Amino acid sequence: MPEPDLMTLLTGDGATAALFTDAAWLARIGHVEAALSRAAGDAGVVSTDLAQQAATFIEDFQPDMGALRAAMVQDGLPVPDYVRQLKSAADPALRPALHVGATSQDILDTATVLVIKRLNDRFGPEIEALIAALDDLSARQGQQPLMGRTRMQAALRITAGDRLAAWRAPLPRHIERLAQLRPRLELVQYGGPVGLRGGPEKRAEGNAIANALADRLGLHRAPSPWHSARDGIAEYAGWLSLVTGATGKIGQDIALMAQMGEIGLSGGGTSSAMPHKQNPVGAETLVTLARDNAGQLSLMHQALLHEQERSGAAWVLEWLALPRMLQATARSLALCTDLIARVQRIGAA
Amino acid sequence: MPEPDLMTLLTGDGATAALFTDAAWLARIGHVEAALSRAAGDAGVVSTDLAQQAATFIEDFQPDMGALRAAMVQDGLPVPDYVRQLKSAADPALRPALHVGATSQDILDTATVLVIKRLNDRFGPEIEALIAALDDLSARQGQQPLMGRTRMQAALRITAGDRLAAWRAPLPRHIERLAQLRPRLELVQYGGPVGLRGGPEKRAEGNAIANALADRLGLHRAPSPWHSARDGIAEYAGWLSLVTGATGKIGQDIALMAQMGEIGLSGGGTSSAMPHKQNPVGAETLVTLARDNAGQLSLMHQALLHEQERSGAAWVLEWLALPRMLQATARSLALCTDLIARVQRIGAA
Amino acid sequence: MPEPDLMTLLTGDGATAALFTDAAWLARIGHVEAALSRAAGDAGVVSTDLAQQAATFIEDFQPDMGALRAAMVQDGLPVPDYVRQLKSAADPALRPALHVGATSQDILDTATVLVIKRLNDRFGPEIEALIAALDDLSARQGQQPLMGRTRMQAALRITAGDRLAAWRAPLPRHIERLAQLRPRLELVQYGGPVGLRGGPEKRAEGNAIANALADRLGLHRAPSPWHSARDGIAEYAGWLSLVTGATGKIGQDIALMAQMGEIGLSGGGTSSAMPHKQNPVGAETLVTLARDNAGQLSLMHQALLHEQERSGAAWVLEWLALPRMLQATARSLALCTDLIARVQRIGAA
Amino acid sequence: MPEPDLMTLLTGDGATAALFTDAAWLARIGHVEAALSRAAGDAGVVSTDLAQQAATFIEDFQPDMGALRAAMVQDGLPVPDYVRQLKSAADPALRPALHVGATSQDILDTATVLVIKRLNDRFGPEIEALIAALDDLSARQGQQPLMGRTRMQAALRITAGDRLAAWRAPLPRHIERLAQLRPRLELVQYGGPVGLRGGPEKRAEGNAIANALADRLGLHRAPSPWHSARDGIAEYAGWLSLVTGATGKIGQDIALMAQMGEIGLSGGGTSSAMPHKQNPVGAETLVTLARDNAGQLSLMHQALLHEQERSGAAWVLEWLALPRMLQATARSLALCTDLIARVQRIGAA
Repeated sequence: MPEPDLMTLLTGDGATAALFTDAAWLARIGHVEAALSRAAGDAGVVSTDLAQQAATFIEDFQPDMGALRAAMVQDGLPVPDYVRQLKSAADPALRPALHVGATSQDILDTATVLVIKRLNDRFGPEIEALIAALDDLSARQGQQPLMGRTRMQAALRITAGDRLAAWRAPLPRHIERLAQLRPRLELVQYGGPVGLRGGPEKRAEGNAIANALADRLGLHRAPSPWHSARDGIAEYAGWLSLVTGATGKIGQDIALMAQMGEIGLSGGGTSSAMPHKQNPVGAETLVTLARDNAGQLSLMHQALLHEQERSGAAWVLEWLALPRMLQATARSLALCTDLIARVQRIGAA
Repeated sequence: MPEPDLMTLLTGDGATAALFTDAAWLARIGHVEAALSRAAGDAGVVSTDLAQQAATFIEDFQPDMGALRAAMVQDGLPVPDYVRQLKSAADPALRPALHVGATSQDILDTATVLVIKRLNDRFGPEIEALIAALDDLSARQGQQPLMGRTRMQAALRITAGDRLAAWRAPLPRHIERLAQLRPRLELVQYGGPVGLRGGPEKRAEGNAIANALADRLGLHRAPSPWHSARDGIAEYAGWLSLVTGATGKIGQDIALMAQMGEIGLSGGGTSSAMPHKQNPVGAETLVTLARDNAGQLSLMHQALLHEQERSGAAWVLEWLALPRMLQATARSLALCTDLIARVQRIGAA
Repeated sequence: MPEPDLMTLLTGDGATAALFTDAAWLARIGHVEAALSRAAGDAGVVSTDLAQQAATFIEDFQPDMGALRAAMVQDGLPVPDYVRQLKSAADPALRPALHVGATSQDILDTATVLVIKRLNDRFGPEIEALIAALDDLSARQGQQPLMGRTRMQAALRITAGDRLAAWRAPLPRHIERLAQLRPRLELVQYGGPVGLRGGPEKRAEGNAIANALADRLGLHRAPSPWHSARDGIAEYAGWLSLVTGATGKIGQDIALMAQMGEIGLSGGGTSSAMPHKQNPVGAETLVTLARDNAGQLSLMHQALLHEQERSGAAWVLEWLALPRMLQATARSLALCTDLIARVQRIGAA
Repeated sequence: MPEPDLMTLLTGDGATAALFTDAAWLARIGHVEAALSRAAGDAGVVSTDLAQQAATFIEDFQPDMGALRAAMVQDGLPVPDYVRQLKSAADPALRPALHVGATSQDILDTATVLVIKRLNDRFGPEIEALIAALDDLSARQGQQPLMGRTRMQAALRITAGDRLAAWRAPLPRHIERLAQLRPRLELVQYGGPVGLRGGPEKRAEGNAIANALADRLGLHRAPSPWHSARDGIAEYAGWLSLVTGATGKIGQDIALMAQMGEIGLSGGGTSSAMPHKQNPVGAETLVTLARDNAGQLSLMHQALLHEQERSGAAWVLEWLALPRMLQATARSLALCTDLIARVQRIGAA
């Protein structure tokens, strides 16, 4: 895993960033292509033996990056050249078991879903960890008095626990939402060039490959491809932004409390000019990331307008927005839990 | 119901617009205040008799609009002056049963949820109607050949039915999503000034009022207020934009097909300069509304950053974005179903 | 002028809203059509006498609103039916002088530019008035000490005047920007159906009409139509959002100061639950409007992707976003100047 | 310069990306700090000799990246630790000439402006090159007949040259805009902790340093710091998006023409499934980048709401959005010029 750069340290998440390097992307493409070869065997389209050999060949295959890079500019995605290289390097006997019935978007969408699934396996527990940190803080300091504030004015006295409860409230709902949306999102993509899974005559075969591919990758089966029906991924982007909205609200409140002296944090940021300051950097970063996700979300919804059977323009817009949203969310959860754990005092100064 | 203006005719929905006139807004405020008086009776906080009298008084009450308008600018919302007028007009004996334990946001959020609920009761069947129109068209014309197009290029031949199936695919998922989110959205709002429902000593009473208010209005009970936890409403905005994303994709495809002569529509738009043209105005409008909703959505997510116990700035941002999203969605569903019904021919010219 | 509704009172501007009623829209369409008839006379395309008669006829013409409303839905804009009605009501002898060489977009874009010009004539002085209010406050209270705050932390002591100077700084630049962009924006639109101004043979005539139309309406001449080149209007939207960004920053700072007791305002908002509160409603509204404009701006830039010679979808997106931006800007300037004038004390509590 | 990754090859610009690596960022920080030391000498705040020695020391200084990385998370920016390391490594005699009167934001904003200036020096000529490519194509193929299309319908016949003229029209205006905005944008940032340039007693000195720093770096002088007045940078973001709006419109039109067979391009993208296809990948990418910039723009305007004397949250939002916008613009200009040069035929198929 490469070292994250300075901006990633602040606003991103190293582990998530590492999923979007070229090496990781190509490894996923290979992983999906290999599973597809095996799925073709499972579906009886090629012999199990040939499928197995093809998959092994793919797993050992290292594409020529120079050629891939040149082709990326022309093709707009790495799969066509990857497959060209693969087919050219493979024993001709393996070819019937390579990239069987697939189009580039089948491979890339499935690969993206594998990343998403992996992150979702993490996000659930990370939200639980944030809930636990809030509960712990509430147990420690929940009885502290705090001025309740509405419309930027002191209103009536509440307790720190009251505010912590408001911060916590959306989090279990986010877990519920995630559980509900995963079956609509973590779907195999398999349709072939125009989404017909081989067309009327071969659809049974195509469906069998699609299902086997899903099973092999631990994804949900998809009754049909979703090349141009992007609601699952746009809904998910909304979920990511809901999560950072919750952490962003916490960050904003903490920054406001820091200003009023209503909170004490260990490990605040330092200033190059004023040694006495303790900047609530983590809290501010949560605000930044929430606002950024809210902006990216609109692009994910603009990208719902995939034209015809498959779109290049709308699809690549997803590639720009989604990785950033995933990083912002991963970073926000970790940062927020850390920030809550660093609260030494909450309540009236 | 006032006559919708020209822009509403094109991009809005008259029935939805009518829900956001001053008269409708104030009627809803009165409706919630009356239910709250009754709920206070149900909860035993005031006598049932007093509650009943107060509710009846509210139902007959007509606020002085001039005073309300002047106060709107100063207070930023109509409730404080409405309540002031109400209390001043009412027999002093009724006062204990008026606006019991409530803050303005309780009234306005609950009133907004009532509108949303009413529209959701409509949106479900409207999506079903669109599905039926697509199914009908597919039954009539699904076997027509059509050039499948990917990345703005002719790819392979498909059928009209194949494309119609892709248009249809997200719609049942939108119905499923709506069913899942309604219990998180159609919640009573009741918390009082800083969300404590009367505070530690009176919380049982506050909870009882909250639950009775929910029951009376046909809303879900809320275990706590959601003054500053806006995930339900932001999630819903995402749903609205998912729906218009689906209709916008249909609109965009129809506009592209109209250009290629691949579709025949009755009742297209006319031109002031070129009598031979039949503009696919409805299809274009679906694209406009989808893009608009995608933009408004980002504001609904920016508004997740409600600060402290209650925010004025973030809350009013919702008021600007949400009504427009509701109208865009209502209009899109009606327009799309109408457009599909007007397809006379789909497939190769 | 109709009475603005409650939301317009808070977040809009009555005078600006009045420019976007149906009556005002149609009056502007008539105004442009009449000027076009006269311009055709000026250019020698029809006799001056006929031009004059046609213009007078248009100025007296009242369209049948029922028919227009029905046509709006079908045509997506009011001009085709308006022109149809006009031609049908006019003496056939006038027809050569009606809607000469124009397409609907010529009329509507020119009409929009007339509104913009009128508002720009207002915005300049209104920014000057805000500068004057800030200067006046600085003269009165600029020497008051104030805690300088960075990254939500007390930093070093400054004066109220230092902060007021920072609020003021962008305003003269906004005036400079407006002066620079007006010649790119306040342009006549005249191109005919596909923007050729009559095509190769008749272009001299078309250019003469375009120039005469510009001169008659007090607009800048346009060397060519800008049906699909929307940079002028998108740039202007950016300017509107820069202005509300400046007032929004002032609003946000005032809200933060109000919370810290660092500012005293006369006439704050009242609460339905807490009589002791003075909510900084105006300050919050400035924040709301700035955030809203920032969101609408992205739609105005999405709408730069006008396809081919003229787009329906992208164009109507402008109609949704721009009026709201104009209102938000007009409201923000008036509100901000008023707010500054209501500052009774600024500086340490 | 590191090799750009695959996504940068497609949607970014290698040379621009290279300006945002950690190494480039830190080199710029060093460059600004060295210039600041020299400026302190120019202003007579330290001796010229000491200034020179300090500058030379900074130019040779290599920070400890491990320590910087750890501090980045805590401080939210690299400058405080960089300065700490610098001061600790330097001969104590040099300290009076290090980071003189500066705050971190002075260094980082000035460094960002240096990047922007460098790119602006490139963007002007690149727009000229695009104009030249369009003129060349028009000279070669402008007389070809082309169907003019409005609202997604065939309208009237035009020529290829007519459409090329519409594509070209905004480009000279973008050059004019850039010339007008550069003096508002390419400004030195220098204010110290709360923007007072040393405060009332030392302001003459502070102004002298600010001016000398501007002169040394080839930037415009700034009468006052713009820590929280971000209109220059937000205006510039608007300009970037106007430019990609122009190239995005060209891309969208080319993609539509490619679909209708109205254009012939050399070097189109290939498909992994359909060897007969020539995808207009470059054209689609222009659309993607224009839509992305339109979305990022709204974040740059949200970031206008910098609170108080300096904001962390809003400022870092700029860091997320602006580099992406710069890359999108650089990429779009190069891609669009290349695409136009690759047009072999334009006009009726």
